[in-house]
Amino acid sequence: MKTFTADDLESMEKLARVQLITSLPGAKPISLIGTTDGEGRTNLAPFSSVVHLGSNPPLLGMVSRPDLVERHTLANLMETGAWTINHLHEGILDAAHQCSARYDKEVSEFEAAGLTECWVEGFAAPFVAESRFRMGLELEDLVDISANGTRLIIGRVVLVQLDGEVAADGSVDLPGLGCLASTALDTYFSLQPLARLAYAKPDREPRRI
Amino acid sequence: MKTFTADDLESMEKLARVQLITSLPGAKPISLIGTTDGEGRTNLAPFSSVVHLGSNPPLLGMVSRPDLVERHTLANLMETGAWTINHLHEGILDAAHQCSARYDKEVSEFEAAGLTECWVEGFAAPFVAESRFRMGLELEDLVDISANGTRLIIGRVVLVQLDGEVAADGSVDLPGLGCLASTALDTYFSLQPLARLAYAKPDREPRRI
Repeated sequence: MKTFTADDLESMEKLARVQLITSLPGAKPISLIGTTDGEGRTNLAPFSSVVHLGSNPPLLGMVSRPDLVERHTLANLMETGAWTINHLHEGILDAAHQCSARYDKEVSEFEAAGLTECWVEGFAAPFVAESRFRMGLELEDLVDISANGTRLIIGRVVLVQLDGEVAADGSVDLPGLGCLASTALDTYFSLQPLARLAYAKPDREPRRI
Repeated sequence: MKTFTADDLESMEKLARVQLITSLPGAKPISLIGTTDGEGRTNLAPFSSVVHLGSNPPLLGMVSRPDLVERHTLANLMETGAWTINHLHEGILDAAHQCSARYDKEVSEFEAAGLTECWVEGFAAPFVAESRFRMGLELEDLVDISANGTRLIIGRVVLVQLDGEVAADGSVDLPGLGCLASTALDTYFSLQPLARLAYAKPDREPRRI
């Protein structure tokens, strides 16, 4: 086993440390967050920190770092109270990654990256038309993470759209929708179905379904 | 596009709603969290909510839901201040899933699921010997999420071990280590390398590396 102590991590060159530390969670979700400001200027930014917080009510969180690019997203969703999560697929991967470039606030990443805005009546944030699995959220809370100045943005899911079916048991076919995973800030994977396992109980063996 | 409104989500049968809502983040990381209480009783629990919070200092978060199984993890790490994150691979997937069963506190999931404890001198939580990519964390903060009674557990990474190399640029070969992704509470994927993309800039086209 190759081992890195706290001192080893601290003494790494900065970019290499970022690459390693952003790999530690393993496979991360990757999606485009769509927002708009009060004047209709739209914004798209890739996030890999979307996390499930609860199913009833349906709450998702995501982490906003104290840097410029993601502050457009944070400022917009604080202004409108709404954002969209748009899952990637291979066909829009390059465009989605391009949305991580530090464009000025006046530039819409939709236009810069060649993606298409899609609006749902009554919902105050733009969806990505090319996405095959997307959802709309309304701001529920912002939680300060004092340990490093980041913020957990918490939203309630009010709309889900997908280019496919949800099974009777609620399952979604992520590989069928082309959903990807990511690690670090630059590496992307496709998903290969491996197993689905029955609800585990202390008194029975693991069972694949 | 198949569409679900907030009302549609609310009126779903409970288990189906949980399955759908836990699928919304897309591909999630999946790992085993190792802890022990003050009397040396060890615990293992699968978590799919590990999220990167920052690289300097190296901080990861994870969400503890207000339910029995994960409270063993929370109580233990509050007692000792330490936990381990142990990434899965296909060879320990069934055992890892079995750790989600609601065992009594007196039962160690290591023993129940057939996994092997591994201790590092001076670190107060057990690693999974079979894991090929694992890390040790020390408690940095606990943040209450009042929106639904969950808690964000924040830890500082003090040890990283992997059965392989870290590239000079800090990259980790997740597929080479057999790391998996998950969705919902029961579905697992392997990772297929798709692309690595250069740091994006406003004035240049996306470039694969």
